[in-house]
Amino acid sequence: MKFSEGIEWSIHCVAVLAGIPSGATLSNASLAEYHGVSESYLVKHLKALVKAGILESVPGPRGGFRIARLPAEITLLQILEAIEGREPMFQCEEIRGRFPGCPQQSFSKPCSIHAAMLKAELEWRKSLQGTTIQDINAQVKSSPERQQADEIWMQKHLRLPVGQAAVKS
Amino acid sequence: MKFSEGIEWSIHCVAVLAGIPSGATLSNASLAEYHGVSESYLVKHLKALVKAGILESVPGPRGGFRIARLPAEITLLQILEAIEGREPMFQCEEIRGRFPGCPQQSFSKPCSIHAAMLKAELEWRKSLQGTTIQDINAQVKSSPERQQADEIWMQKHLRLPVGQAAVKS
Repeated sequence: MKFSEGIEWSIHCVAVLAGIPSGATLSNASLAEYHGVSESYLVKHLKALVKAGILESVPGPRGGFRIARLPAEITLLQILEAIEGREPMFQCEEIRGRFPGCPQQSFSKPCSIHAAMLKAELEWRKSLQGTTIQDINAQVKSSPERQQADEIWMQKHLRLPVGQAAVKS
Repeated sequence: MKFSEGIEWSIHCVAVLAGIPSGATLSNASLAEYHGVSESYLVKHLKALVKAGILESVPGPRGGFRIARLPAEITLLQILEAIEGREPMFQCEEIRGRFPGCPQQSFSKPCSIHAAMLKAELEWRKSLQGTTIQDINAQVKSSPERQQADEIWMQKHLRLPVGQAAVKS
């Protein structure tokens, strides 16, 4: 079982938007170019992130996407749930009591398989909940050449409010 | 993202087969009837469990499926990997360095998003690895009526080696 690419794209987009100057935005087309991914697919995910209150969409010619809250307040779990929903990965169909002759109310406890699968998912969710976009960006160590190339690309693509210079916040 | 039904079916089948008398088997058709699931889909999963060394397939008119190792030696993770494979759920496509002008060898550390997603998966896997079919079956508390109905159904469907009575091991 694999997560959709949308998860990876979405986390990277939020991480990039967390690193641009306050108030600035990047368009859907720019975010797609930066990551080398499909613009039409990406926009669906960006809209889901807006709906979840993780990103803001700023309309107009200087508009685009920016983060809607502080990087320390955005967890990987929130991004994942914005894209994939909150339903558990393991969904119990209660197949314990289906054989012919099986009485109703057969068990006094919930299915132990269901419980064990949910417990494992909880561990996974706890780990994702404990990691914020601030944590993610703090761990990035890019080369000076990369930083320079990044700045050149950003100068071309960042959309800034009128009168604001592209100085990293 | 949801796990396929095959995961639930497979764990339940292994748990049921762990509870039948030593040497006895249940056919694919019986396991499908017991759980009220599609026989043709179930057989694919049972074959995967045989391939992984979790179940044994006994040929012949008294044949069927039985567990290939002790219930305490079968973990939920083994069953899950037999059905879904061992690939991580999150697969990094390394989309950090795709923008025009981005130099090769931009980062001195692996992608922190990839690392965080794999760390969460590891927590999930550790939990599943720590739960055996023996643990699962030890937690089941079925009603006396259910136990009786179960025994009646099993007497009709269990396939025993010649000369062996259907006494629960």
